[in-house]
Amino acid sequence: MTDPQRVLIFDTTLRDGEQSPGATMTHDEKLEIAQLLDEMGVDIIEAGFPIASEGDFEAVSDIAKRSKNSVICGLSRANYKDIDRCWEAVKLAARPRIHTFIGTSPLHRGITNLGQDEMIERIADTVTHARNLCEDVQWSAMDAIRTERDYLCRVVETAIKAGATTINIPDTVGYTLPEESADIIRMLLEKVPGADEVIFATHCHNDLGMATANALAAVSAGARQIECTINGLGERAGNTALEEVVMAIKVRRDLMPFETRIDTTKIMNLSRRVAQVSGFPVQFNKAIVGKNAFLHESGIHQDGVLKNVETFEIMRPADIGITETNIAMGKHSGRAALRSKLADLGFEMADNQLNDVFVRFKALADRKKEIYDEDLIALMADSAANTDTDYLQVKWLRVVCGSDGQEAELKMVVDGVEKSAKCSGDGPVDACFKAVKQIYPTEAKLKLYQVHAVTEGTDAQATVSVRMEEAGRIVTGSASDTDTILASVKAYVGALNRLRVRSQKTAPDADLKSVSYKL
Amino acid sequence: MTDPQRVLIFDTTLRDGEQSPGATMTHDEKLEIAQLLDEMGVDIIEAGFPIASEGDFEAVSDIAKRSKNSVICGLSRANYKDIDRCWEAVKLAARPRIHTFIGTSPLHRGITNLGQDEMIERIADTVTHARNLCEDVQWSAMDAIRTERDYLCRVVETAIKAGATTINIPDTVGYTLPEESADIIRMLLEKVPGADEVIFATHCHNDLGMATANALAAVSAGARQIECTINGLGERAGNTALEEVVMAIKVRRDLMPFETRIDTTKIMNLSRRVAQVSGFPVQFNKAIVGKNAFLHESGIHQDGVLKNVETFEIMRPADIGITETNIAMGKHSGRAALRSKLADLGFEMADNQLNDVFVRFKALADRKKEIYDEDLIALMADSAANTDTDYLQVKWLRVVCGSDGQEAELKMVVDGVEKSAKCSGDGPVDACFKAVKQIYPTEAKLKLYQVHAVTEGTDAQATVSVRMEEAGRIVTGSASDTDTILASVKAYVGALNRLRVRSQKTAPDADLKSVSYKL
Repeated sequence: MTDPQRVLIFDTTLRDGEQSPGATMTHDEKLEIAQLLDEMGVDIIEAGFPIASEGDFEAVSDIAKRSKNSVICGLSRANYKDIDRCWEAVKLAARPRIHTFIGTSPLHRGITNLGQDEMIERIADTVTHARNLCEDVQWSAMDAIRTERDYLCRVVETAIKAGATTINIPDTVGYTLPEESADIIRMLLEKVPGADEVIFATHCHNDLGMATANALAAVSAGARQIECTINGLGERAGNTALEEVVMAIKVRRDLMPFETRIDTTKIMNLSRRVAQVSGFPVQFNKAIVGKNAFLHESGIHQDGVLKNVETFEIMRPADIGITETNIAMGKHSGRAALRSKLADLGFEMADNQLNDVFVRFKALADRKKEIYDEDLIALMADSAANTDTDYLQVKWLRVVCGSDGQEAELKMVVDGVEKSAKCSGDGPVDACFKAVKQIYPTEAKLKLYQVHAVTEGTDAQATVSVRMEEAGRIVTGSASDTDTILASVKAYVGALNRLRVRSQKTAPDADLKSVSYKL
Repeated sequence: MTDPQRVLIFDTTLRDGEQSPGATMTHDEKLEIAQLLDEMGVDIIEAGFPIASEGDFEAVSDIAKRSKNSVICGLSRANYKDIDRCWEAVKLAARPRIHTFIGTSPLHRGITNLGQDEMIERIADTVTHARNLCEDVQWSAMDAIRTERDYLCRVVETAIKAGATTINIPDTVGYTLPEESADIIRMLLEKVPGADEVIFATHCHNDLGMATANALAAVSAGARQIECTINGLGERAGNTALEEVVMAIKVRRDLMPFETRIDTTKIMNLSRRVAQVSGFPVQFNKAIVGKNAFLHESGIHQDGVLKNVETFEIMRPADIGITETNIAMGKHSGRAALRSKLADLGFEMADNQLNDVFVRFKALADRKKEIYDEDLIALMADSAANTDTDYLQVKWLRVVCGSDGQEAELKMVVDGVEKSAKCSGDGPVDACFKAVKQIYPTEAKLKLYQVHAVTEGTDAQATVSVRMEEAGRIVTGSASDTDTILASVKAYVGALNRLRVRSQKTAPDADLKSVSYKL
């Protein structure tokens, strides 16, 4: 990196974000998000924690193979087995990175039962091992903010001497303030021998609502890598939001003379896509990517906006890729028009994928006169759901509900065999889900159920997201339809299909007790 | 204020929050939220913008009459008519405050066509007028952050000389950084004569995700009033979130030796209530009050939590009033038990209110075996909906939906007369809403439709929120039922009832083009 003002963006949506309870993504979704991140200009993609599960390993390895410009990074604890497995997964990337960590604060040393000196040895040993495998090694001091300052200098010096090229200083519990975040980076740069030869990274959590400010304060003090996720996805209150740090640097170049390589016009599409696949909706007033973030409706403000756009707008919607909603397509639109429109929206696809989407597009256009961009995005969101190759497929549904009770009749195909059921329940959704269970008995529990209308108006498509848990595995299913109840059943069945795939791939309790880890 | 480390909490959920497009609250909801804020220990409640509408005036005035410990504040522009109207509304409070403002940045001076000296005169004049009416006067320099520093000193000096007791420095466009926010307060305290005799306030917006850090930086530099809203509600990306600044001060007393008067154990209830009445859901990973904010699920973290709760927890759920979800009530629970449980959850009510809630509680208990705290909170949320005194009432509904089409039959009472309709539509919700429209024709447009399950499991109640717009008026309706479709119709009809009340009280375009204002 030649330009001293270049700030590297390290995205960990697929590792720290995906680790968030309920945000589990499928293999294909991970590949897609990685490709979008690469195209947006993310410098480093943390693709997963290879030793955590077979699925994680395969995802990191496939993302590595397909990577274009981004460095592909995998996480590993401070032992040879983790590091070797990580290297196996990332080595096919054009630019691989091994990321290894250990908890350095008194509380974490207590958990690992390592004394200060023993931990120093462990760090020297593991970082050297990683560096022997890979030229690009990142080392993190978990809970750095609560580590004694002197000891933090010692561990950082050790990691640098052992060959780490990036040193990450995580605020693991989301506890720091901007001044403190800056002070620690400044101290390390001043005191640690060799600090000027590595890149310092900041990794913040938002438990007190200050992740963005803390990350930027670290950069002002000399850090040159920000670790973040799309929509601030992550455990608890989440990680630093990529869109916030990137746009803040862009808007306040006067005070922060830094640069990132991010194409900000791709932010909105990525935000929507991550919200969809994670099942974590973005709140209306979320900074940058919330539905209301660019709405100006109070009277004085509206006047101001009309008279001079700068009065209240510090950013333009177009800066993050928001275009005017317009009637995108109708029932007479053809395959080429659909492909071109989808490409505009950020979806590139092969012919066989397009065929499937086109069939579903036509079915929607028969029922809904005006197809908006949002409708197409919703259509893409469940393009993988309920296809002829799925183990469970919904074939036909009839539901009666209202004041006098609720009843559902359902026909499904299970592993190629058609089955049917008729159930009553507490509400139409309960009746339907009971019918599914009668056809395909399962212990899976519904943890979350939510519905959003895709566009305005009563004939809008509804997107239903369900989150289910079985034996500690957590999956999200989503589906869209103008019929909310039908969408609910498809989302539910989609989630059951996913649970089935996961149970073949991973051990029980994979999500709850896996060797996952949050810096 | 005797203690120099006391930070005043100024809550503007009912003014700046409520002004957010779609977050309109009813009169009763405003009174309830004000009471909860007062009980939580908020120092100043900004209750509304009295001249904006008759409804705003009445809300501020009724809140003033009922206030206990909080100062009640109303907003007014820089003219006598606004200020007089504001005083009329707040004067019955035990501790009234007039808040007046003008835009001082070059862009805003351009809008009002006032030169620098003319604006100084206007400020002296209007603040003096306000101070002649009320001892407690707050003055705000709208867009202060983008005002020339020298001129900002001049206007602040003018307001202080004219008698303002609180000076507010808003970051109207959500543009500042912590260092800049602190620098401006520090400069004003150093340079402006009389600055040591007033309280400086900070009012931040979250457009770049830094409202919390900016507010706290201002406090570190000498500001002693934070303006904020519950859940960070507000236009665009919203305001500083009350729960974040209050908890940050509590958690990091080592670096921020300040105090607030807030009873933090009331935060969660207020957050839930504001989310319900505003129709603005809180995202899972929202700091402090998000559903996931206290979830620890990754493996290493779980071990840590078990071994030592401090390892990853910097706050306890109980600090903000989160208690374990447990089976609260069943069908055999009596009236006294219900009243006591509701009081625990923060709902105090008169006998006639309790009767209504008890009837609905029994109806729910017939259908749902286990009634959780969340079920009761949802029940309270629509306790005002669909009562016998409403203009529009839902009497009976039957819906058929699924693969072969959707049809709804509906019976309603309109102004005491029973009517019925039968309609088909694109989806069951569309069919139902069409039936409502056939019975009660309306031009109102559905702007938002969303459904959340109240608890886990397929037999959970669903809470449906709809946001509707007619002639520029925006209302939110919500209802809960185990039958999603029935809840949808009740929410829709509830919104129509609200629109009717609003259209009798306010002019068209009240929400879109009123003289509302966002600092």
